[in-house]
Amino acid sequence: MGQSSLVGLIVQKFGGSSVADAEGMKRVAQRIVTTKKAGHSVVVVVSAMGDTTDELINLANQVSPMPNGRELDMLLTAGERISMALLAMAISNLGHEARSFTGSQAGIITDSSHGKARVIDVSPGRIQEALDQGAIAIVAGFQGVSQDTKDITTLGRGGSDTTAVALAAALEADVCEIYTDVDGVFSADPRIVQHARQLTSITYEEMLEMAASGAKVLHLRCVEYARRFDVPIHVRSSFSNKEGTWVVSERPEGDEMEQAIIAGVAHDRSEAKITIVGVPDRPGVAAAIFQALADAQINLDMIVQNVSAAATGLTDISFTLPKDEGQIAIGSLKRIQGEVGFASLQYDDQIGKLSLVGAGMRSHPGISATLFAALSGAGVNIEMISTSEIRISIVCRESDLDRAVQSAHSAFDLDADNPEAVIYGGSGR
Amino acid sequence: MGQSSLVGLIVQKFGGSSVADAEGMKRVAQRIVTTKKAGHSVVVVVSAMGDTTDELINLANQVSPMPNGRELDMLLTAGERISMALLAMAISNLGHEARSFTGSQAGIITDSSHGKARVIDVSPGRIQEALDQGAIAIVAGFQGVSQDTKDITTLGRGGSDTTAVALAAALEADVCEIYTDVDGVFSADPRIVQHARQLTSITYEEMLEMAASGAKVLHLRCVEYARRFDVPIHVRSSFSNKEGTWVVSERPEGDEMEQAIIAGVAHDRSEAKITIVGVPDRPGVAAAIFQALADAQINLDMIVQNVSAAATGLTDISFTLPKDEGQIAIGSLKRIQGEVGFASLQYDDQIGKLSLVGAGMRSHPGISATLFAALSGAGVNIEMISTSEIRISIVCRESDLDRAVQSAHSAFDLDADNPEAVIYGGSGR
Repeated sequence: MGQSSLVGLIVQKFGGSSVADAEGMKRVAQRIVTTKKAGHSVVVVVSAMGDTTDELINLANQVSPMPNGRELDMLLTAGERISMALLAMAISNLGHEARSFTGSQAGIITDSSHGKARVIDVSPGRIQEALDQGAIAIVAGFQGVSQDTKDITTLGRGGSDTTAVALAAALEADVCEIYTDVDGVFSADPRIVQHARQLTSITYEEMLEMAASGAKVLHLRCVEYARRFDVPIHVRSSFSNKEGTWVVSERPEGDEMEQAIIAGVAHDRSEAKITIVGVPDRPGVAAAIFQALADAQINLDMIVQNVSAAATGLTDISFTLPKDEGQIAIGSLKRIQGEVGFASLQYDDQIGKLSLVGAGMRSHPGISATLFAALSGAGVNIEMISTSEIRISIVCRESDLDRAVQSAHSAFDLDADNPEAVIYGGSGR
Repeated sequence: MGQSSLVGLIVQKFGGSSVADAEGMKRVAQRIVTTKKAGHSVVVVVSAMGDTTDELINLANQVSPMPNGRELDMLLTAGERISMALLAMAISNLGHEARSFTGSQAGIITDSSHGKARVIDVSPGRIQEALDQGAIAIVAGFQGVSQDTKDITTLGRGGSDTTAVALAAALEADVCEIYTDVDGVFSADPRIVQHARQLTSITYEEMLEMAASGAKVLHLRCVEYARRFDVPIHVRSSFSNKEGTWVVSERPEGDEMEQAIIAGVAHDRSEAKITIVGVPDRPGVAAAIFQALADAQINLDMIVQNVSAAATGLTDISFTLPKDEGQIAIGSLKRIQGEVGFASLQYDDQIGKLSLVGAGMRSHPGISATLFAALSGAGVNIEMISTSEIRISIVCRESDLDRAVQSAHSAFDLDADNPEAVIYGGSGR
């Protein structure tokens, strides 16, 4: 990518596994100093060391079965405080000035939803000042301060990535580098698809669909934030100097993927399916069902309603949801069974979801047909289907999922040993 | 004490050993709730759990041999952050609202001397607000924020006690309770003097002299702060409900100790003695010696200069200092030996110091004579003497120190089984 040679201000984010011990700290410090020595201004966002967060949660559970949200956030933010101070020390020890800042000091302003706060403003005055004075700024990931109450908040899962992107946006950084334990974003999970290829670049919207469909490398909120502020993200390995994957608004000219129809195949084993059998097909019934699920804060994914049988006036409604919300959903549906009058509930946690993601779908009909043919050829039965503008998702048996992913990956010529693949026009599909 | 039944706002300080684990947290939470239930407003200052601070220092040393002061303070303050959040959770679990605050949030404003910052202002607006809303406020001890740089600072040894007293002063609390692992302040160390008596009260100036003379129950800076703002301190055990020792400006009427000449006998084994032999007795020589020691930041305690021998024009100068500063002092003296022209240096770390402290000394001559007679009777040789208005200190062999303390304690009728002791007029001395 041409961008990497032009950058002047780089935000780098390192996760907890990269700084799990003193040796990791020193290795990360060395990498940061190398970037600094190349002439760049550097802001680093760091997570808590290794298992620190889990250990703190364990302590909390020892004193209280239901820790207060404000206090749990106060407790957990100690984790990044420790890692950022140690990282600053390790950098100082290499002869470069580094100053650590809490989320509050770095100006990460959030709402007051403890445990899952949203960033509503970033005022990085102290960070800019440190950069202006030639120092490396180290910022605690995952945390902020609430605008209303001035209480310490945490951003929830993927929070450190979001901190990094939010700071990169506010500081108008040239790139936000997310260091991880894989080389970048792949066309499929390499553990399932042997010939999965690392993507040179992917668009924000594709990455959003991939993340929402089970790809774990970047969290949804971080990608949403990057898209909103057009922050280029470079996902790369903390164990090598190889180029990773750029997440950008449009694939740059000359990228071999520039004209790709399909970016990749994501999969997800974390969902379950609930089928409500024998639902009276009259107005208001579906509304009552989904209101009950909304009241229980269930995160629904795919929803399918069969055509009702004319003879009975009854239909079936199926939906998918995270497995760990299954019991709550069943409970709230049972409470409205009398009122709604459905016959029974079926719970199935042996499902898998495959999603084909690609911006090229917009202008290329026939993608579904190719996918369904491939799955059929592999003997995979499709149980549910849903689509967005740039995504097709199907639900199948969990035991068929690996085979489904492999056959889809091959059908769209994504395999890395097929050099003419995935280029628009190359395959003619 | 009449005060305890009248109080409305109480500051309670708990040290790291009281909150070393979840059980300790819960016990302390119970005690706090008991105070709250009695109708008081309660502010709690808490130290880091058990060995947390040492563990964090160990981590710092793994990444850097000389950790930066700013970053070390950032690191160490994670310790109180953890303990205060857990304590707030434990209190919430008992059905009372508790909110934790960092030093910065509690308005502890300091200078920017990292590792030993001094409190220069306290603006406890958020604490007052929490109290006004009926909540228990939990404040991180030992930490603040610098006025100039807005960086996080730590207050150094005894810092949590100082935080408690500073908050009590700013909030105009009725009492600052310092919870510890002993029952209060004693007339001597009970491990040395079997019949040492717990003092009902002691004045600030006596407590200052006791603390400066080796009594460890309260730190000098905390007592200085309490005296300056006239904050009553109640030193008491975290393991019982017994009354402890009140540290106040004047002993209240009716206190059996009201007219006491001597409050107690302190001792100190942490000092060493350096003797500079054969110092030319001419103007400027002593100045050169002590300037060299000041430049090396040596904390001198007692200083004795012998009368010079007329024949030689040479004298000896002895001084005491903390043992752990001995090597630095010897080094800086050797560097000026050529210039100053003394003969040799003697280093002696087998000394002990005994201090007799009592406000009654001001109006009662003859205290020294009684002390020296007692020591002589016990076969203790006095090597150095220094006095203040309310203190007499002597240096003897460390091996004689226990005997010296016991004999002084008896000579001033401080033993607990002698009920008519220590009352002015009671002994006639």
